[in-house]
Amino acid sequence: VLDLETIAAARVRIAPYVVRTPLLRHALRGDCELLLKPESLQPIGAFKLRGAFSMMTTLPRGCPGVVAHSSGNHAQAVARAARALGMRAAIVMPADVAVVKRERTEADGAEVVLVDPAGDERERRAEAIGRERGFVSVPPYDHPLVAAGQGTAALELLEDAGAFERFYAPISGGGLMAGCAVALHALAPGTELVGVEPADGNDTRLSLAAGERRTIPLPRTIADGLRMRTPGAFTFPVLQKHLARVELVSDEEMLDAMAFALRNLRLVLEPSGAASLAVALREGRGRCGVLLSGGNVEPALLEEAARRAAR
Amino acid sequence: VLDLETIAAARVRIAPYVVRTPLLRHALRGDCELLLKPESLQPIGAFKLRGAFSMMTTLPRGCPGVVAHSSGNHAQAVARAARALGMRAAIVMPADVAVVKRERTEADGAEVVLVDPAGDERERRAEAIGRERGFVSVPPYDHPLVAAGQGTAALELLEDAGAFERFYAPISGGGLMAGCAVALHALAPGTELVGVEPADGNDTRLSLAAGERRTIPLPRTIADGLRMRTPGAFTFPVLQKHLARVELVSDEEMLDAMAFALRNLRLVLEPSGAASLAVALREGRGRCGVLLSGGNVEPALLEEAARRAAR
Repeated sequence: VLDLETIAAARVRIAPYVVRTPLLRHALRGDCELLLKPESLQPIGAFKLRGAFSMMTTLPRGCPGVVAHSSGNHAQAVARAARALGMRAAIVMPADVAVVKRERTEADGAEVVLVDPAGDERERRAEAIGRERGFVSVPPYDHPLVAAGQGTAALELLEDAGAFERFYAPISGGGLMAGCAVALHALAPGTELVGVEPADGNDTRLSLAAGERRTIPLPRTIADGLRMRTPGAFTFPVLQKHLARVELVSDEEMLDAMAFALRNLRLVLEPSGAASLAVALREGRGRCGVLLSGGNVEPALLEEAARRAAR
Repeated sequence: VLDLETIAAARVRIAPYVVRTPLLRHALRGDCELLLKPESLQPIGAFKLRGAFSMMTTLPRGCPGVVAHSSGNHAQAVARAARALGMRAAIVMPADVAVVKRERTEADGAEVVLVDPAGDERERRAEAIGRERGFVSVPPYDHPLVAAGQGTAALELLEDAGAFERFYAPISGGGLMAGCAVALHALAPGTELVGVEPADGNDTRLSLAAGERRTIPLPRTIADGLRMRTPGAFTFPVLQKHLARVELVSDEEMLDAMAFALRNLRLVLEPSGAASLAVALREGRGRCGVLLSGGNVEPALLEEAARRAAR
């Protein structure tokens, strides 16, 4: 079950481990005020820590370990949470993963298991580790406890900012938006919820229009956190119930939003983390909650954003 | 008077207006943990907002306005505070001030008065405005109410982090360090207080060694917020009483610390804002409170830091 109670309970469990990120306000032209939630300031640089701790704090003390497959922020989140909770962790990664991501995961004490990047070996290998060692799988988004953890960000934002007209968050697997949607509509039912996807990663937008989950080719957007081919089985019905619409952003718009964040918010955002900001800047009206999901950006993209910030 | 009571009282007055910046933790090699206070996340991108609100919230309702002279973060702070408190503000700036700084000050509704950059016309003009219009002068650092406001940052850090062994903050006029020093030593007397100055802006270090205020030539460091020629008359005795030592940083070290912050903390810092981090990284031992004072960086320096972050 994903409801206000499970989200509030997740918040109590994760409080000792995550940063209560601040509310940052930014006034735009006219009557527009951005109410920003910078999850890029979490210790691993992304909101994913909330979901990982939410699920892993429910595991029994005797749990031998956890297993996850990810090449991105979820890997870091599970590794960091396992270390904090005194658990073992195995992270299955494609063999072509960026060295820095592998090193950061290992620095948190996790065992990294490399597999062939092509095909579905990642999932099968993670399942095998679960079977053989009794490790519990921590899914990146498609689980009520994970989504409840991500929803705690919206709860905090609402408390700090009071109600707002509109809320923007990026959609990858949908765990973040599902958790935030349930929290927001429980307490502020009038909030218009706007999902954001990259232009070529529009699986949720297509699926919502079709009324069922659709699958798209692997997106090539610079937003590596949003390269998803289909919505989650658990998260999709939640999004169907709550979302007003999904807006698309181009790579150019994300880079410009990253530059805006560097200059005006003094924040480093990754493209996925700037996607919601890009749409909020484009629409620019009313009091808008904006979830900035992460700040783990490739160095070349950070340089490009810094160049744009100088213009 | 500058003591724990006046700092606690300042905190109550400024609470509605400033961001309670989060505690960010970063583990370094071995036993070193950085406990970071990112004042770069204040709405104007610097801690100066605390001091301005601290003093200006004590002014009587009938006060016709405030006046300040500054070309940096203090100008922004006074302009922003005046708008929030419904006061008029006149800011005296040198005619060669960066256009963006002038525009941002004017965007907050302040009247900008330009004067000859050479000589001491800035102070005389500000005094004249005070005399002619009855505007109250808001000094950038050399006033107990201003220093008390800056000290609220250390109070918050101590509450969030618990006691720590060492505290690093930059020293320009000394208001920030004076306020923080009094707050920290009132509640955690064992804290070693380390001031940080640019290598060629070592007026406080020289003055402490001499036992009296000394004046140096105008520093040319890239840390424009730390180009100070002599310590404050009010702040210097406070620093004399509390500081363990002052460490110096080069432009290179500040740029490297800015790169570290971009990559590992996802924060944009200006050189002054990264100075304390540079020394903490160099010394790297124990639990260290580190005040990151601001993030209003020149675009060219941000680009340089982003390049270094890619190495």
